[in-house]
Amino acid sequence: MRTSYQRQEWPVRTSELGEFGLIRRLTEGLESRPDVLLAAGDDAALLDIGTDGLLVATVDAQVEGRHFLRSVATPQEIGYKALAVNLSDIASMGAEPLWALVSLVTPPTLDVSVLDGIYAGMRALARRYGVAIVGGNVAATEGPLTLDVTVLGRVGRGRALVRSGGKPGDSVLITGALGAAAAGVLVATQPAPADSPLAREMVDVVRASMVTPTPRVEAGRALAATGVVTAMLDASDGLAADVGHLCAASGVGVTLKAEAIPVSAAAEAVARAYGREPLALALTGGEDYELLFTVRPDGIQEALAAVAAQGTKAHVIGQLTDVGHGMRLQQADGSLHPLEPRGWDHLQAETGGTGGTGGTRDSGAAT
Amino acid sequence: MRTSYQRQEWPVRTSELGEFGLIRRLTEGLESRPDVLLAAGDDAALLDIGTDGLLVATVDAQVEGRHFLRSVATPQEIGYKALAVNLSDIASMGAEPLWALVSLVTPPTLDVSVLDGIYAGMRALARRYGVAIVGGNVAATEGPLTLDVTVLGRVGRGRALVRSGGKPGDSVLITGALGAAAAGVLVATQPAPADSPLAREMVDVVRASMVTPTPRVEAGRALAATGVVTAMLDASDGLAADVGHLCAASGVGVTLKAEAIPVSAAAEAVARAYGREPLALALTGGEDYELLFTVRPDGIQEALAAVAAQGTKAHVIGQLTDVGHGMRLQQADGSLHPLEPRGWDHLQAETGGTGGTGGTRDSGAAT
Repeated sequence: MRTSYQRQEWPVRTSELGEFGLIRRLTEGLESRPDVLLAAGDDAALLDIGTDGLLVATVDAQVEGRHFLRSVATPQEIGYKALAVNLSDIASMGAEPLWALVSLVTPPTLDVSVLDGIYAGMRALARRYGVAIVGGNVAATEGPLTLDVTVLGRVGRGRALVRSGGKPGDSVLITGALGAAAAGVLVATQPAPADSPLAREMVDVVRASMVTPTPRVEAGRALAATGVVTAMLDASDGLAADVGHLCAASGVGVTLKAEAIPVSAAAEAVARAYGREPLALALTGGEDYELLFTVRPDGIQEALAAVAAQGTKAHVIGQLTDVGHGMRLQQADGSLHPLEPRGWDHLQAETGGTGGTGGTRDSGAAT
Repeated sequence: MRTSYQRQEWPVRTSELGEFGLIRRLTEGLESRPDVLLAAGDDAALLDIGTDGLLVATVDAQVEGRHFLRSVATPQEIGYKALAVNLSDIASMGAEPLWALVSLVTPPTLDVSVLDGIYAGMRALARRYGVAIVGGNVAATEGPLTLDVTVLGRVGRGRALVRSGGKPGDSVLITGALGAAAAGVLVATQPAPADSPLAREMVDVVRASMVTPTPRVEAGRALAATGVVTAMLDASDGLAADVGHLCAASGVGVTLKAEAIPVSAAAEAVARAYGREPLALALTGGEDYELLFTVRPDGIQEALAAVAAQGTKAHVIGQLTDVGHGMRLQQADGSLHPLEPRGWDHLQAETGGTGGTGGTRDSGAAT
């Protein structure tokens, strides 16, 4: 007689909704104001402050045991990354980062030299981008060390790049190369197979990608200035998931060319040593903090040149299609396969796959 | 032969520095920018965005077990307060709150209805003040539920009220009455003495003060508009500690009149029932989120009228003095006693005194 079993009256664990399901549930129908141009659902909020520039605001938390391990990363690296993931969100809007607020939630027993190191790492990165840490908060917790960083920035009115502007026919591009951060998590969390010696320098490269990713601030601003970019976000959840975010927001499909997706050489070496598919690291590993963007058909050369002028390389990896085609991956032989928009889910993943606790994870769809 | 014992080479626990010592240590010598008008050390940062209005930014974290208990407060009340303490920081600058970012750090096993309730509480308060929740973040933790809220606001150039503007001779005023939140913590965490029946309505009043404090947003803006207020902050750490913050920032001393300090009637009833000194709750209990401000000698009537016009009452409780006099409390008989700037320390206090875990604590000296 369980006629009402479809109505869930019993408790629902937060993790059952998944990260993006939970965000949708909590932010649906949120009250707004006329000066809010973009709220939850992109990398950052866009706020009209009555000047030529719009205010850009984003927040991201890093939790010990989930996003970083002190056995893997130094305090300086942990601090660096807590700021870097937010700078990446600002970069993905094509904006200039200006100010940061740091909320520190710390066990009272923590050796203060750890916090000294974390602040040193944040300050070094802030200095590089001219960002001022303008305040924050300190609170105690019985739980793990948690760093919550808010970054504010500015972007010219009409210049901000969001996820929803992609159109069928636009090319899909990515800066840099993918997979190294996920390879770093592999190396940090799983012993290397004894029969597969791995060059020390490759290990060093993937470790650095995992703990000190470079936010593409200059490339993001340069791309926004071209006027040919139609949509952008940072690749933090894994390429397949991030392309999925862009397609969902823009209402389009996509075809990615497998052989055009740039996989880091170090990630490839690590993947082979661990018997993993290199492309899988790029598609589902995440944490690369490269810029994923779409460009109108006549703008590819201009976009590539804008990125190159900032010392970074971009690659054309596919094309947007009508939404009816869905998401597809084209192999070198021309065959088309469905591409699942799967990557990291912050609430569901425990330590499985490459998306483990060795690195820092950004919850991409929140501001 | 421990000749070098004065140099601490062994680990220093974060709690040994205390909250404000830690904040000083981490923020000392932070790099700035010309558009940063005020950074760490006040209730909020002041940022020049190139308009008539300045941007005001503040962040505050609420940690389960430290700042709230789900056995004491409903999810709606927890969400309300997580936003309210930030609105209070904005109010203390005389600013208008505009936008909020919510970073949720949650155990994956948490029943999602708790988060629904927390958001409902935040949204209800945001609506009341016309604040838009423009984004946020969701992250998982093995530790306690943590709510980290950033609020951005605006204040007219030259209108912002900070802690450092007090001068000897200025009067010291406070809105509302003190001690009720601390009395609420008493009631929530300690069984009432059997021989001292306490009216149910008094218990309800102090409980409400603890879990749903009213941020004095309208009064703060009205005070900023008068032009007679010289310094302001919100009374969150206990009056003695908060007056201490103001005196330290302004480089002045103070004499408070004990009999002029407004103690809430409900707090007084609870204090008597528990055998506590009512004034002690006001001086060291904290969490009242009233506005503590100083007024130049010719401006008292104007300041009182500005607060009254917003439906709140303010009281003159003392006067600023030369710094050499230190902090003093004058009893009704005219005798002067040293006033220790002691209140809540977020890192050192565990659950002792009235500053227990039943309520939410603001770390006042951070933005």
